[in-house]
Amino acid sequence: MMAETRDRIIVATNELFRRQGYNGTSLSQISEAANATIGSIYHFFPGGKEALGVAVIETTGEMFRELFESIANEAPGPAEAYVAFFAGAGTVLAESGYIDPCPIGTIAREVANVSEPLRVAASNAFASWISAATRHLTNAGIPTEQAEQLAHVFVATVEGTFVLSRTQRSTAPLESAGRCVSRLVTLAIDETQRTPTP
Amino acid sequence: MMAETRDRIIVATNELFRRQGYNGTSLSQISEAANATIGSIYHFFPGGKEALGVAVIETTGEMFRELFESIANEAPGPAEAYVAFFAGAGTVLAESGYIDPCPIGTIAREVANVSEPLRVAASNAFASWISAATRHLTNAGIPTEQAEQLAHVFVATVEGTFVLSRTQRSTAPLESAGRCVSRLVTLAIDETQRTPTP
Repeated sequence: MMAETRDRIIVATNELFRRQGYNGTSLSQISEAANATIGSIYHFFPGGKEALGVAVIETTGEMFRELFESIANEAPGPAEAYVAFFAGAGTVLAESGYIDPCPIGTIAREVANVSEPLRVAASNAFASWISAATRHLTNAGIPTEQAEQLAHVFVATVEGTFVLSRTQRSTAPLESAGRCVSRLVTLAIDETQRTPTP
Repeated sequence: MMAETRDRIIVATNELFRRQGYNGTSLSQISEAANATIGSIYHFFPGGKEALGVAVIETTGEMFRELFESIANEAPGPAEAYVAFFAGAGTVLAESGYIDPCPIGTIAREVANVSEPLRVAASNAFASWISAATRHLTNAGIPTEQAEQLAHVFVATVEGTFVLSRTQRSTAPLESAGRCVSRLVTLAIDETQRTPTP
């Protein structure tokens, strides 16, 4: 029951941050949306909105990493995983009426120069996605350094296409990104296979 | 003198939005930073903060489009333009202590579901960058549809690497992005040259 209230607060906050950003969301809106008193919010998050922001970033970070890994596992090949990931994001975005699929990028930009705990939480979330994609790409035979670069570009492109797609109310940027990232992955694999092992 | 005050208000607002986002910035902070009274802000922007946000998006949108075109003109080749653009962004970011180089992406995510005038202004700014890059790529011989896709990915990657680089306090994501976008452009040009014209 306690865990239930805590989860309800995180879920409600997550959605409010996705709709209207971190600074645009007040504790009283969170209280109303989560059907929890302000006192109860402070009980679970003594650090108030900032601590709640860290919790939202951590749970979302974990959720997206698991989503990526599960899509990657089910895809017929390494390059196809990226097409599938962006296609899935497009479906979620369109179905939700173009609410931000991810609260992390918005919070990160709002607070990167203002709140060190939130910046660090966002940085850790992105780093966990980059590690997951790097692992996926090295498993496909791509050398580590190149895999890391591609993983950075993948994560940056996810965050960037969320901005473009929401602003333009179109899933086209996500589809283009899926094709382009997938293309870069295919090329990197082809090159690796052409390079003779020493 | 009038134009000077208006410009001063826009410049100060731009920097506040880049540091702390749209919702995190109050009219009284803008008034102080711009050394202009609240009355003077309403004189130039009768619509208040939202109208000022639209003006900041429009001027920044124009500025980045011109910056891209000037970098593209000076680059030794089409693919090199993208490496140079991301390298320049990295320099600006590091020199400014990782303040956001662009207020548009943050505002876009904060307000895309809340303020239609701000969403439309951001959408127009992104569309003008996409058009500029599409022109640049079609001039390099890439077919229009493919050029448009690459241009979308370029703009998304710019916005996405700003998030990553700021959050991680590192210019590495920008450098990886420069190399990857440049690579995609080179490949598209190579393909075009291999395809016999009908």
